[in-house]
Amino acid sequence: MQVTAYQTPSAKAPFQKATIERRDVGPHDVLITIAFAGICHSDIHTARNEWGEAMFPLVPGHEIAGTVAEVGAEVTKFAVGDHVGVGCMVDSCRECENCKAGEEQFCTNGGMTGTYNAIDRVEGRPTAGGYSTSIVVDEKYTLRIPDSIPLDEAAPLLCAGITLYSPLNHWGAGPGKKVAIVGMGGLGHMGVKIAAAMGADVTVLSQSDAKKADGERFGAQHHYATADGTVFDDQAGTFDLIVNTVAANIPVAQYLGLLKTRGVMVNVGAPAEPLEINAFGLLGGAKVWAGSMIGGIAETQEMLDFCAEHHIGATIEKITADQIDEAYDRTVDSDVRYRFVIDIDSMRD
Amino acid sequence: MQVTAYQTPSAKAPFQKATIERRDVGPHDVLITIAFAGICHSDIHTARNEWGEAMFPLVPGHEIAGTVAEVGAEVTKFAVGDHVGVGCMVDSCRECENCKAGEEQFCTNGGMTGTYNAIDRVEGRPTAGGYSTSIVVDEKYTLRIPDSIPLDEAAPLLCAGITLYSPLNHWGAGPGKKVAIVGMGGLGHMGVKIAAAMGADVTVLSQSDAKKADGERFGAQHHYATADGTVFDDQAGTFDLIVNTVAANIPVAQYLGLLKTRGVMVNVGAPAEPLEINAFGLLGGAKVWAGSMIGGIAETQEMLDFCAEHHIGATIEKITADQIDEAYDRTVDSDVRYRFVIDIDSMRD
Repeated sequence: MQVTAYQTPSAKAPFQKATIERRDVGPHDVLITIAFAGICHSDIHTARNEWGEAMFPLVPGHEIAGTVAEVGAEVTKFAVGDHVGVGCMVDSCRECENCKAGEEQFCTNGGMTGTYNAIDRVEGRPTAGGYSTSIVVDEKYTLRIPDSIPLDEAAPLLCAGITLYSPLNHWGAGPGKKVAIVGMGGLGHMGVKIAAAMGADVTVLSQSDAKKADGERFGAQHHYATADGTVFDDQAGTFDLIVNTVAANIPVAQYLGLLKTRGVMVNVGAPAEPLEINAFGLLGGAKVWAGSMIGGIAETQEMLDFCAEHHIGATIEKITADQIDEAYDRTVDSDVRYRFVIDIDSMRD
Repeated sequence: MQVTAYQTPSAKAPFQKATIERRDVGPHDVLITIAFAGICHSDIHTARNEWGEAMFPLVPGHEIAGTVAEVGAEVTKFAVGDHVGVGCMVDSCRECENCKAGEEQFCTNGGMTGTYNAIDRVEGRPTAGGYSTSIVVDEKYTLRIPDSIPLDEAAPLLCAGITLYSPLNHWGAGPGKKVAIVGMGGLGHMGVKIAAAMGADVTVLSQSDAKKADGERFGAQHHYATADGTVFDDQAGTFDLIVNTVAANIPVAQYLGLLKTRGVMVNVGAPAEPLEINAFGLLGGAKVWAGSMIGGIAETQEMLDFCAEHHIGATIEKITADQIDEAYDRTVDSDVRYRFVIDIDSMRD
């Protein structure tokens, strides 16, 4: 079927309205009428070909929220009218050790099929993402969005939400644990909300105090500006867990110094430049430095249910489809509080 | 009391025989007649002032094995004639969170008191290590060496043994786990023996095949030479745990690529130069890079009991005290299989 989408024809070109082809609804597929699509920094890196592997024309978008419009004959999880979401993947091999363990994001058999800019395992052509009026996705890779979360605030949970929930969950954020979130952007603000809801004592480490009041509103108990460096002495050895959302070359060694003995720092942002540490920074105190990348389908559902239970949505700025280019520039300038979400209805005019 | 020791008067000077002062045996102390002292690479870094904090004259040695010669009035753990050992520390604050948790090596209240080159909490002057005929140590920081481990083979367990046991224990080496030991020196050979005894499937990653037969004798199932780099492709994604014993700037990113999803690399060697990785190497597969530094007193005792149960001792070359300088040069050249141990009787002539 033909649907409307916003695509970019090349790395330097603005977005343009276009008509793209979606596959017919197969027996295990759901057709989703998309209501909102979040703008993730990865969309920008890919659309501008900064990671060097973009296939044009490109329809980004992997923070998708909408309503089921049609279900395939063998679909059991969803019915027409259900609120659903799609995150960073629409498929994976389903057979490797990781897929079987519910870590489809680390599929070792060709990798997960990205929601955009990947070759679809069914169709054999590039996947197209959520900047679009509809999408067809296997029910296994479709998430249920609890009715209590408004769809616009739910969209960013599908990437930003799970990106923070997974490391916080895996590394034991909770009561009695001091957790720091580095960076208060689209990722970081979700980290504050989720860590606070998990019962942790939450600190924001941000360059300035500009977002201090927001952090407190999201549930942070403490806020330290990192620009003058004093926090690295004053708070040395005090954190159980630090989640670093900054995709820039921050001084990792200084952040490791903020950890307690056997404390853990998790990177979810990936700067292009290498990061450097001195091994003594890991040895003394048996520190741990780990990575994390979104989460599996089951954990993403768990995150959505957790957010519903704790009344968590993303804090967003809604835009129309013709504002995508402007929103990209503003996102790069960190001029968004805290996530742009495209109102897909604006594509239906 | 006065005892004989071998000390170095300055960073560039050879070792010389000397008489040093030990404190009288206090109510909680044991006087140990030292039988053997291992030569650890840290001894060399300190004696040559490569870490920049050496206090001369210096008596190194923190791999100490001997026999109890006298006990203080309130000593309960030991009796005259017991086989005992002393490792890297002889005291700590005993009150901080880490000391109470049995992680005295990470004492946050002034740090652990090193067995040498630290200021003794009781005496207020520099501690002197195991290159000496006797030492006086609080029973709390004295370890029991099971009679089944010969004292010469036991000495290196007090540092090299616990340095490997602790990360293998903490990160779950055991049946069904693929464990790689990087480097087959004094540390690495202990890692092979201990990981094999824990039931793991053990691989040695060494520059060449020169020590392959030894590795197999110590319990390794596999051996790969790393020099030509093919192992990083052939064995990519296959290890649960890698313990890196190499104190040189190895290509960390390549080793992270050898890990399975959520696999762990632990550094126990600390090169002076910074180590560099790309954050993608941690994010993809949610890899973990951690540090470890010896172990607490209780875990060190656990290691000694484990080694006794599994008939593990260090593989050593015994030397006399007048061979220390030569042994240092050979250790720096990796010309030792696998640990030099000073026969302290040679100081008693």
